[in-house]
Parts: sequence; structure tokens; C-alpha cells
Amino acid sequence: VITPLEWINGKLRFLDQTRLPLEEFYCETDEVDVIVDAIKRLAIRGAPLIGIAAAYGVASLRTNVNDAIYIRKHLMDVIKLLESTRPTAVNLFWALQRQSSVLIQWKTNSIADLQKQLLAEAKSIHQEDVEMCEHISSLGAELLPFSCNVLTHCNTGRLATGGRGTALGIITKAWELGRIKHVYIGETRPLLQGARLTAWEIKKWNIPATLITDNTAAYLIQKGKIDVVIVGADRIAMNGDVANKIGTYNLAVLAAHHKIPFYVAAPVSTIDFQVQTGSDITVEERNGREVTEVFGLKIAPEGMGVYSPAFDITPNKYISAIITNLGVLHSPFNDSLQNLRSRGESAH
Amino acid sequence: VITPLEWINGKLRFLDQTRLPLEEFYCETDEVDVIVDAIKRLAIRGAPLIGIAAAYGVASLRTNVNDAIYIRKHLMDVIKLLESTRPTAVNLFWALQRQSSVLIQWKTNSIADLQKQLLAEAKSIHQEDVEMCEHISSLGAELLPFSCNVLTHCNTGRLATGGRGTALGIITKAWELGRIKHVYIGETRPLLQGARLTAWEIKKWNIPATLITDNTAAYLIQKGKIDVVIVGADRIAMNGDVANKIGTYNLAVLAAHHKIPFYVAAPVSTIDFQVQTGSDITVEERNGREVTEVFGLKIAPEGMGVYSPAFDITPNKYISAIITNLGVLHSPFNDSLQNLRSRGESAH
Repeated sequence: VITPLEWINGKLRFLDQTRLPLEEFYCETDEVDVIVDAIKRLAIRGAPLIGIAAAYGVASLRTNVNDAIYIRKHLMDVIKLLESTRPTAVNLFWALQRQSSVLIQWKTNSIADLQKQLLAEAKSIHQEDVEMCEHISSLGAELLPFSCNVLTHCNTGRLATGGRGTALGIITKAWELGRIKHVYIGETRPLLQGARLTAWEIKKWNIPATLITDNTAAYLIQKGKIDVVIVGADRIAMNGDVANKIGTYNLAVLAAHHKIPFYVAAPVSTIDFQVQTGSDITVEERNGREVTEVFGLKIAPEGMGVYSPAFDITPNKYISAIITNLGVLHSPFNDSLQNLRSRGESAH
Repeated sequence: VITPLEWINGKLRFLDQTRLPLEEFYCETDEVDVIVDAIKRLAIRGAPLIGIAAAYGVASLRTNVNDAIYIRKHLMDVIKLLESTRPTAVNLFWALQRQSSVLIQWKTNSIADLQKQLLAEAKSIHQEDVEMCEHISSLGAELLPFSCNVLTHCNTGRLATGGRGTALGIITKAWELGRIKHVYIGETRPLLQGARLTAWEIKKWNIPATLITDNTAAYLIQKGKIDVVIVGADRIAMNGDVANKIGTYNLAVLAAHHKIPFYVAAPVSTIDFQVQTGSDITVEERNGREVTEVFGLKIAPEGMGVYSPAFDITPNKYISAIITNLGVLHSPFNDSLQNLRSRGESAH
């Protein structure tokens, strides 16, 4: 089993995903700056995993100062720093909000006590994600027809979450249930999470799979080789618009045009109850060198201008269903998401 | 000016396009095997340029044998060998057909005479392509609105033709006429002809341009940033279906879905009058290593299965117009192409 993130002996041990599939290299750290850097450069990536890592980042508080006022201020700065790493995935803000609440509710002024509580909260965010993945995977697998050909994008498996994954969790669960014939993996330029990470994960599962360039998906779908498209999400607006890895909207249009289902899988923590529509979601733009260089190797002329949004926005009308840990949501998403929100609030 | 192919001192001098943009490396050869290899590994590429190179390949006959029967047989083998390099682009077969006719009409039994005729035919195929590019570019440029944002795919410029190009020829001509505001270039995985070649060419023209990954096109079009999509073609069926670089069909669907024009630009030599529909066109599948390795660098796990068609087929219904050197063709393409064919035949 792949463990991309683990709390061991007071340190966060994480797999540096930028080095996959060439190398399985693990880092150990108790320094928040290292975690911040790892999230920024995508050594730790995947919306749920970023949230978990950030929660551990807050918990990796290491101080000899016994000054509660200083600690409060310091931790608020740490939370702000972690919030600044990636703007689009909402799980990050959600996890940091939970750590922020722990800090606010801290009354004892015992630093050791605070450390214990922050670590417990991080572990519980981590553990909850394991369970959310299981629920999503079971609910999603049931939606798939038997012996189907599925296309996925980016990486949404163990490397992206605390558990078995979201979209890829569904695929591996469906495989166990005999529902998968073949998996097609879009390589996901520019950072090749499909080629580097999903291909690597799926090989470990021994599921029959084929890697394609992103621009081959249309041709495969045209030829009837794809029955279902499943992707993850980085943020879901209250109307069901979805921010996800660049290329997702492209697949959504293709699925709609060729009349095959297009599913989005994500934990409830990916829903931003503050955001009404996709147009209100900030889309991160990445450095153009991620496009003009592959593993540091130049593939475009010096000085070429690049536009590299990390995500795109898929309007709700393209989405057949949103598969969450609390149930499968259908259109109209305004209603089904509002309903989910009410259930969440009444549970508290 | 870029000269990707030139006949100098009895040899073919060609730019090895696989090394661009890192290196401008030219090869000189009078050996047909070197030309065959250059076409196979895409050192010489672009449907029209492949045809021109193949014609020079036949003309690079270098023999001391003064045996007309042997020469005939040898040249038929050379033509077969050149035909076997790439299956999809029809210009290759068209150019070789012309050299084949020269060979069949050769009556003098003088080898020197044959050599002269084959070289003259190759040069005339080359020169005709220069003129075809000019006509296509002028006709196409007039179709573009003033100050438009255009998206193109792969490379269809000087590096792909004998002249200024087809789709890219239109763009550079339109730029000269003030019709271009900005050019977006799809990088064109797996071999990155957009990033490596089109970006390199367009920088030489000083046209404002931005490189994007192929999966960013949908998002740009969704945001209204693209007014027109223009691509080339490797083979056009009599019903107007178009075989072109993988990713073309994807762009065609996006253009139709977002109601922007989708133009195909190609010389008449790209029309296959023998093929009724796109489904009759052989689509070349390339080695998976072109996907799993970038400039020899591994980006996917060892042994990962890959599907890598070099081309896809865009059905005629997605095409706003086909811009040829003999005029702009509109739907129904069955009629407009048949009409073009009749004009061609009556001209002979």
C-alpha cells in the first residue's frame, strides 16, 4: 500500500511526488516551511491530501517558548502561511479552519496540551478522509455498469487523499467488483499527474490500463471506447460548478457531446458553501516553466509566453452526478447541495 | 527565412526538426535511406514537406550502373520504400505518384536524362507547394475577422511545407494584414510540434503568441478568448472528413460546442480523391515511447501500455470551411470537392 503521508515520531513523513515514477523518495520534517514548500511545488498534492498535510503542518508546532500569547500569534501566522500555498482547493482552507477552531477553543494555556489537541485534530482529519474515500468509492462503484471502460484525468487515488482516493478510489473499488474492463488515463499536462502518478498507482493494482495524451481522449470517445468519465474536484460551488485540474472542462464537453456520463467524485470537504458559482472560484495560475520544461528539460523556445491555469471550471450542466461521501448528488445541484448542507448543519 | 529542405549540389539538405528548438541542425544527404529514416522519425514532417522530401528522395538516384531495366526496378523499390514511411498523409503518395509517372514516361534509357527529369519534377513539386501556400494563405487570411484571436495546433508553417505554410501561412499572412491580435498555440503532445516548432516559427515573425497545453484550449474557448480555430490536414476524404494531427477532432468538437469557426487549410494535393469518407483513412499508430518519454526522459512507469494514434478523423460536419489553393470549400463538401475534382480534370 502506498502511504504518501504519515505522522511518525513527531514528524511528518511524506512521499515527494514530483520525483515519481522515477524515484520513491520520502522526506521527514517537523518544519512548517518544508511542508509549505512541499505543497507549493506539488511534492504533496491532491485536494484532500493538501488539507491533511496542512493540518499536520499546524500540528508540527515545535517551540520552547512557554508564552501562550506568542504561540497564538505564531500559529495564526502559520495558518496564514499554509493558506497562501494554493488558492483553489478548498479542502486546504477547511482543514486549516478546523485547526484554527482548536486554537480558539484552547483555554488551558498549556503548550503541551495544545500540541496534543492539534495533532489529534490532524489525525482525525486524516482518518475521516480514509473513511470518506471508502464511502465515495462504494457509492461511485455502484453507478458504473459492469465491465465498463472508464477514462480518468490527473491523480485522485492514494497519492491525492488520505485513503484509497476519490475518482480513482471508485475505479479501484469497481475493479474489485468486476465492473471495470479497462482504464484509460489522460497524462494530464503540464505536470503529468496521470502519466507519473495514476499510471504508477494503477500498475500496483494490476488493473488493465492504457495511458493516452490528453488530446487523444476525444478520438477514443468518438470511437465508442469510453463508457464513463470520472474525475475528482478541487472545489465545488453551491450550484454544482466544479473547479478541477485543467483539462476537466474539456472532458466534460466531450462527454456531453458524445452522450456518456461525466461523474465528479469528492468528499463533502470539497464543497465550498460560501461560493455560489464557479465564476467566484479563484483559479491558480502556475509558472509557465511547468509547460516549457519537462523535468527541467526545455521543450519550447526561450522566452515563449505561456498561459498555464492549474484548474478550469466545469459548469454544473455538464455533470451527470457528484459522488460525495454523504451520497450521490444529482441536478439541480442548487437543491441537492443545499439539502446536503442542511443535513450537515442539523447533524451538529 | 527558415529553409527546412533544400536541394544543394546534388544533395538534399534538411533541418532535423526533432532537435528543435534546442538546436538548428542540418543534415546533407544523397542517400535515400537517410531520407526514409528522417521521414519516419519526424526529422522531416508536415504533410506537404514529406511529399517534397520523398520526391527529392526518388531524385537522389545515384548509380553507376548503366542498366535501364535495373534502374527501373531499383526506383520502383525506392518509391515503395518511401511510401512505407508514413501511412496517413496523402501528399506523400501523390508526390511519389508523380515521380512514378516520370519513370514510366522515361523512354530514352539515358540514366542522366532520367536523373534530370526526376530532379526537375521534385523541384517543381517543391515550387508548386510554395505557390499553393501563398494562395491558401491569401484566401484564408480574408476569412479572418480583423484583430482576432486564433488558436492553432501542431505545426503547419514553413517547417511543414515548401512555402509559408497552410494554417500557419494563413495566420502569418493575416498578421501582415492586421487581422491577428493574438495567436494561441496548442503544444501538441506527444511530439510537441506546437511548443517546439510553431512557437519557434512564430517568434521569428514577432507575432504576439501564447503557448498552452492541449487541455487548456477548452477553458480558453469557454472564456471567449478564441475567435477562430485553424488547423492543417494530412488527408481529406471526398466527403470532407479530415485526418489531421491527434487533438484536431478535440478542437473541432470544442469549436462546434462554443460556436466559433473551425477552418482546415490544405493544398489540393491533400485531398484523396480515392477515399470516400474518413473511416477509410488509415491512421498511423506511433510507438508508445513517444508518449512515455520526452526527449528520452521517462515520464511514466516502466512498461506502461500506451495508445498513441498520430492522427484523428474530424467528420465534415464540424468543419466551417476547407481552405485550398484552388478556393475555399464549404459544406456540402461532397459537392464542393467533386466540383474541385472536375475542375482539376478539365484542366488536364
